[in-house]
Amino acid sequence: TRPLTFIAGPCQLESRQHGLEVSAMLKEIGERLGCQIIYKTSFDKANRTSASAQRGIGLEDSLPIFAEIRETTGLPVLTDIHTAEQCAIAAQAVDVLQIPAFLSRQTDLLVAAAQTGKAINVKKGQFLAPWDMKNVVAKITGAGNPNVFACERGASFGYNTLVSDMRALPIMASIGCPVVFDATHSVQQPGGQGASSGGQREFVPYLARAAVSLGVAAVFMETHPDPDNAPSDGPNMIPLKHFEAIAADLLEFDRMAKASPVMAL
Amino acid sequence: TRPLTFIAGPCQLESRQHGLEVSAMLKEIGERLGCQIIYKTSFDKANRTSASAQRGIGLEDSLPIFAEIRETTGLPVLTDIHTAEQCAIAAQAVDVLQIPAFLSRQTDLLVAAAQTGKAINVKKGQFLAPWDMKNVVAKITGAGNPNVFACERGASFGYNTLVSDMRALPIMASIGCPVVFDATHSVQQPGGQGASSGGQREFVPYLARAAVSLGVAAVFMETHPDPDNAPSDGPNMIPLKHFEAIAADLLEFDRMAKASPVMAL
Amino acid sequence: TRPLTFIAGPCQLESRQHGLEVSAMLKEIGERLGCQIIYKTSFDKANRTSASAQRGIGLEDSLPIFAEIRETTGLPVLTDIHTAEQCAIAAQAVDVLQIPAFLSRQTDLLVAAAQTGKAINVKKGQFLAPWDMKNVVAKITGAGNPNVFACERGASFGYNTLVSDMRALPIMASIGCPVVFDATHSVQQPGGQGASSGGQREFVPYLARAAVSLGVAAVFMETHPDPDNAPSDGPNMIPLKHFEAIAADLLEFDRMAKASPVMAL
Amino acid sequence: TRPLTFIAGPCQLESRQHGLEVSAMLKEIGERLGCQIIYKTSFDKANRTSASAQRGIGLEDSLPIFAEIRETTGLPVLTDIHTAEQCAIAAQAVDVLQIPAFLSRQTDLLVAAAQTGKAINVKKGQFLAPWDMKNVVAKITGAGNPNVFACERGASFGYNTLVSDMRALPIMASIGCPVVFDATHSVQQPGGQGASSGGQREFVPYLARAAVSLGVAAVFMETHPDPDNAPSDGPNMIPLKHFEAIAADLLEFDRMAKASPVMAL
Repeated sequence: TRPLTFIAGPCQLESRQHGLEVSAMLKEIGERLGCQIIYKTSFDKANRTSASAQRGIGLEDSLPIFAEIRETTGLPVLTDIHTAEQCAIAAQAVDVLQIPAFLSRQTDLLVAAAQTGKAINVKKGQFLAPWDMKNVVAKITGAGNPNVFACERGASFGYNTLVSDMRALPIMASIGCPVVFDATHSVQQPGGQGASSGGQREFVPYLARAAVSLGVAAVFMETHPDPDNAPSDGPNMIPLKHFEAIAADLLEFDRMAKASPVMAL
Repeated sequence: TRPLTFIAGPCQLESRQHGLEVSAMLKEIGERLGCQIIYKTSFDKANRTSASAQRGIGLEDSLPIFAEIRETTGLPVLTDIHTAEQCAIAAQAVDVLQIPAFLSRQTDLLVAAAQTGKAINVKKGQFLAPWDMKNVVAKITGAGNPNVFACERGASFGYNTLVSDMRALPIMASIGCPVVFDATHSVQQPGGQGASSGGQREFVPYLARAAVSLGVAAVFMETHPDPDNAPSDGPNMIPLKHFEAIAADLLEFDRMAKASPVMAL
Repeated sequence: TRPLTFIAGPCQLESRQHGLEVSAMLKEIGERLGCQIIYKTSFDKANRTSASAQRGIGLEDSLPIFAEIRETTGLPVLTDIHTAEQCAIAAQAVDVLQIPAFLSRQTDLLVAAAQTGKAINVKKGQFLAPWDMKNVVAKITGAGNPNVFACERGASFGYNTLVSDMRALPIMASIGCPVVFDATHSVQQPGGQGASSGGQREFVPYLARAAVSLGVAAVFMETHPDPDNAPSDGPNMIPLKHFEAIAADLLEFDRMAKASPVMAL
Repeated sequence: TRPLTFIAGPCQLESRQHGLEVSAMLKEIGERLGCQIIYKTSFDKANRTSASAQRGIGLEDSLPIFAEIRETTGLPVLTDIHTAEQCAIAAQAVDVLQIPAFLSRQTDLLVAAAQTGKAINVKKGQFLAPWDMKNVVAKITGAGNPNVFACERGASFGYNTLVSDMRALPIMASIGCPVVFDATHSVQQPGGQGASSGGQREFVPYLARAAVSLGVAAVFMETHPDPDNAPSDGPNMIPLKHFEAIAADLLEFDRMAKASPVMAL
């Protein structure tokens, strides 16, 4: 079992400079902590609550920036794609393609992503049970790509609220692929602020630690130098100045969790 | 206020002959009942539970059949689209474009559908609150298309279960667009049979009548000559031989509901 | 099948005079509408959100008032009991004993209520599935009392919210006892105001009509001359001045529903 | 901060001999692990799914056995009470009174329990939000008893299912009382087997570890020498032979959690 990986970065690629700065800081944190960090960044927010919200730079203009981040920091880069056509294009410049939760049942997208041969991080839909992910993962592996992570990010719980069912982690692990816990979107309050989504940043360190104590492969945790002024997901991103301390804490729990697998009954 | 419309038909377009036969029978039912029926048919099931499930005939091959159904029966035709590119193509042969629930937050799809100028039936995501549909509808109207229906089809309620919150109907009506109640997918049990979705057909007439009694514009109700052998949504489709009786019942309640709007408190 | 009964009255017995006045008005409404009204009144609110909330007059002092209401109006009286000991005492002065939803699994309370021989209205717990009510009803009938109603009042749906699943009505009817729909507590927002429960009175006429269209035996609908100043459940009680119009509307739908049972599939 | 306490024992007091044997084994486990164990045992299962299920020995006959267990093992004893009258009686022979989740809003029961001066473990209702426990705890402290624990045991999540929201632990801790995590009932499937409740014992070690990693005061974990033949809660009790290993694992995570409180953001 490998030590905990972090999938981290700001929600959106805001600019070339912003991307280079934040990724450089995360690279240094990863070196100090001795852990793998995958840089997460989005070229397009295709499913914002409201049409008037900022969407992002777009795929074409993001590709050279993704490549530059990868080159200058040496960090693998992850981005999320929204159409089958984007998969092969994005795959030119990134290491991991991410399937958004709302799109976790779209067969063509899953297959197109799989066919790039890149690693795939597929989010569990808010409307799916953990055992439903078996079929989702099989759409990817069935397309010839065994390199897939299953990512928990909360289940619908009444209106404008998600709940993280920790049972989902061992259930998804039993599918046979590495499990990622998305601490950022698990505390999202979808649509909870009328024209945008709210969030409960303060619970990120709690949910992440609970998940890590069960032995997950990776934690997804968005971070931003100034979350309260970020164009998206600000209420649930971690301030970058706290990232290292939270990650260090999680790595301690990860070491104990990986050394002591939970007893099977 | 106009009398109740039905959006009806088998889940999938199975073949030219199947489509012509079922639509002809529905046309006759509509004439006997004196009500508007919109023929619902899908060229592709893009989000099946499992990759090995039947997908459908495809858009290209379906277009002439859609046109032939429209011409021979005179019924308006509705189909669901899954990518922005499909919108303009499907719009050549159908009257209503439907946005699937999982895709109800995909801005590009909503805008592309809106720009065809066709009527749009947008399903409420299983993960959305009824008031969240305001932003969804605004993405369509904001793209210049005022002809949009908001469709209730159940909210996630624990795992593999949906619940129909009847409060959603007046809440969505207050957005200002006609409200559709999808009785078929509201009784779906998503993923509930492992590699396919289950359903509770027996509750369709109950939920449909409850919704109609509150004064909805349309009921969406899939029907099939032999649901138990249909390639998709069999467990929640109504046998075609019962369709007329159920529709007649709903029209009675519709007349009373439209004559007596619910008192505002 | 008998026509629709109403279980109505203010949440609490506030005073002898208040009880006599409201019950007299409801008696007149029942006579004008030609329908049965059961007068609902509570001597104790034993499970208020906060300990500092008003509890009520108490059982001993309420008994003569219950008797006087019954005598002067001729209306049957219903009250809710909270301990096994209260059952026989309350039974001296009322016609129907009601089991609160939170207590729907307390075997001793159910048996003691059953043994009074009075009619029993048992609320479905917010934490129960409709099919779980089979065991609840069996506890009462098994104690020798066949005169039991099963009452839907919403299921927990995330935090501080309830949802009314209309499928619960036919499911509970299949147990073999009359079904009551509690429109008042189905729109409660438990604990939703911090130290008290909120509510959405505006949805009472919607949910009640949806339920009545499916053919229930009775609607439970609290009403008050001045709900906004009532000591409990104010946000979800109907103003008394609107009660007659809402009830008349429901009776119209009831006639149609009873004349046309929902088709069994 | 004190090290982790366990509240453990079989669901029911089955017999004097059974109680003495199991408590003696738990006492030895506690000594080997160097941790506090509170012996949990019930004299009556007052809210069984079905009336025909075994109820237990009863309060009167249990009192001397409780006293003997306490005396011979030195373990504090906890039992759950269901009526206000039982509180003072049970308090003669036990150290902790437990309020069942269904009864967490019954003011008289909370006050009567509080007035015994014993420690009170109050379960959070399946229908309550974590912040609602503030009012529940205040009913006890307001009656003059500051010695109260708030216990998470799952929230209703659809039908026949509970979900453990780990956010509930820090939210309840902020009320100012020690927090207990009930790993046994969090994996209950209420009513899920028709005439009895099911359970998912295999998730107990997962949920318990996740909760402990967040720094709870105690874990509630029922255990039985032969759970599959136990008269109640068998599907979610831990086999006694595995108890020590699971507890030892949790104590390791507890040490790390208490040494590193979760960062406040």
